[in-house]
Amino acid sequence: MSFANKWEENVRRVEPYVPGEQPKETDVIKLNTNENPYPPAPAVREVLDSFDVSRMRLYPTPDADVLVEAIAERYGLKKGQIFVGVGSDDVISMAFMTFFGSEKPILFPNITYSFYDVWAEVYRIPYETKPLRSDMTIDPEDYKVPNGGIIFPNPNAPTGVLESVEMIEEIVKANPGSVVMIDEAYIDFGGESCLPLIEKYDNLLVIQTYSKSRSMAGMRIGMAFGSEKLIAYMNDVKFSVNSYTMNTVTQLCGAASMKDEAYFRQSVQKIIDTRESSKERLAELGFSFPDSKANFIFASPSKKSAGEVFSELKKRRIYVRWWDKPLIRDYLRITVGTPEEMERLFTALEEILNG
Amino acid sequence: MSFANKWEENVRRVEPYVPGEQPKETDVIKLNTNENPYPPAPAVREVLDSFDVSRMRLYPTPDADVLVEAIAERYGLKKGQIFVGVGSDDVISMAFMTFFGSEKPILFPNITYSFYDVWAEVYRIPYETKPLRSDMTIDPEDYKVPNGGIIFPNPNAPTGVLESVEMIEEIVKANPGSVVMIDEAYIDFGGESCLPLIEKYDNLLVIQTYSKSRSMAGMRIGMAFGSEKLIAYMNDVKFSVNSYTMNTVTQLCGAASMKDEAYFRQSVQKIIDTRESSKERLAELGFSFPDSKANFIFASPSKKSAGEVFSELKKRRIYVRWWDKPLIRDYLRITVGTPEEMERLFTALEEILNG
Repeated sequence: MSFANKWEENVRRVEPYVPGEQPKETDVIKLNTNENPYPPAPAVREVLDSFDVSRMRLYPTPDADVLVEAIAERYGLKKGQIFVGVGSDDVISMAFMTFFGSEKPILFPNITYSFYDVWAEVYRIPYETKPLRSDMTIDPEDYKVPNGGIIFPNPNAPTGVLESVEMIEEIVKANPGSVVMIDEAYIDFGGESCLPLIEKYDNLLVIQTYSKSRSMAGMRIGMAFGSEKLIAYMNDVKFSVNSYTMNTVTQLCGAASMKDEAYFRQSVQKIIDTRESSKERLAELGFSFPDSKANFIFASPSKKSAGEVFSELKKRRIYVRWWDKPLIRDYLRITVGTPEEMERLFTALEEILNG
Repeated sequence: MSFANKWEENVRRVEPYVPGEQPKETDVIKLNTNENPYPPAPAVREVLDSFDVSRMRLYPTPDADVLVEAIAERYGLKKGQIFVGVGSDDVISMAFMTFFGSEKPILFPNITYSFYDVWAEVYRIPYETKPLRSDMTIDPEDYKVPNGGIIFPNPNAPTGVLESVEMIEEIVKANPGSVVMIDEAYIDFGGESCLPLIEKYDNLLVIQTYSKSRSMAGMRIGMAFGSEKLIAYMNDVKFSVNSYTMNTVTQLCGAASMKDEAYFRQSVQKIIDTRESSKERLAELGFSFPDSKANFIFASPSKKSAGEVFSELKKRRIYVRWWDKPLIRDYLRITVGTPEEMERLFTALEEILNG
């Protein structure tokens, strides 16, 4: 390669991840980034009201103890089993850097969260993708080959397909030489978490987030659960990169949210109910889709191409996610919004598909 | 090495950075982490009051445009010349990853911010340190040898010594093949920024922070200024690691603070005044120190060892910073607090040294 400037020869070049659009108009229906349609727990407002802004002059507590304690309490864990970061992207990226140092490739599904290959590239980690089966499930046998680590979301994204805890245990057990990461960003919407397995396997890292079920994507809080050994290694790397990442206000808001279990359950249940009724409506409209246990549905229209439906929806100011990529270009990923938002989506789809 | 578990063979092992203590007691005098003793601009309180918490459910704007615009306006720059991150530690760490990809060593002073070697190690970047001259200034000739990049703070930390813009220009000009990073965390306390040089040299990155002069260490906001080319490379890497790092509340608080120039100048001037009077008092107490242009003084006691004075101060609940390390173990780094805090410090020092 030749560059205009000599210093450019040593620049780390990456293919940047392209996040879903964040339209600035306010009158849109935004079903494109799997955000929660309901506000966060009311206690978060109280945190902002009572926060003494002069505390901002001080560095935050580097171990985010108020937040870690609230999480430990909620999940019945020790503080040393919990790592927190600036969104689960920060957590997973830190985990890649910490644990994926083998020369053997790490493994993940060919259809999955589109950040994994980006992180592998930025940290120069070799990787190999394993095809999903035709029903979009994971074949555990694919993950019983020599590898430098394993990661997949459960439920998987963007498919929404949930794997069983038994199948995950089978993979973790087969890989004592690798760290296995299960990205449970969407687990609260009806899936069974493999969190209890961390007591049994010290090579299992379970990642969760405040961005979906806790309605706090805008605050950036993610967490990982694992053996105290795993978590200590992650903290060492984290403290080397940036000791103070999560700001004081965020730590307090996160702790307050974690303590309101009733609100959490109620808002998650509303989304589950809307998802189930949405499946019926989508089927009626001729969509096919794997069964989703997440807060989105990965659905393929029958009468028009997904790309066409995507554009038509966008014209009507309804944003869903569509990737013009092999294997998934026939699908739309539709976030489950409020019943009212879904109603407007279905009306638009009816118009587009049957109009 | 042998490990209890096979997966541990591939773990990235690092010597974690140890930040200054954040004591939990509230009745301490905290002069150990260079925090600003004054609260942030009053507009920050208004941001929290008027913030609609339901916005937390949405991802933040990934390019932090409201904040970047406010910074661009204040410094008379284009938006494309500004990178923002979660504290200047995040910014510098990202810059290391982006620009220090050469096999030649990067260069920085032997006495400097203690995170540089930590980042070099975590990203596996070769490095070489260059000794300061006996008056703790930097010899520009040391930085005119083949290298993979250059970084130093100006004023330097923990010495507080300021270098001239002319000397920095000399180094930047001599290194067209390297990115030169000037870490201006403390520049607002009376130093002349080399920011104007970014219009002339596209290999210069100037880093600043909200943690010191803007009293917002607790919110984690740092920024880098450079040619549009440099900033674009950094953003590509940043978007690959974590697209959404700075949360919505922080973006708004940062923008509000940046707009209150009068408050900023006033609070910085108070610290400069206190620093200058503190120098006189320290000299009277027998301390020697290089002239500081930062919000701290790096001072060596004459009658007792620095370690002893450090411990005696701590017993009196006054925290300053001391490193039990070669070259600097005779010094205490004392953050400039309020006049009242400094008065209590001097009373204690009098007792310890003359009592």
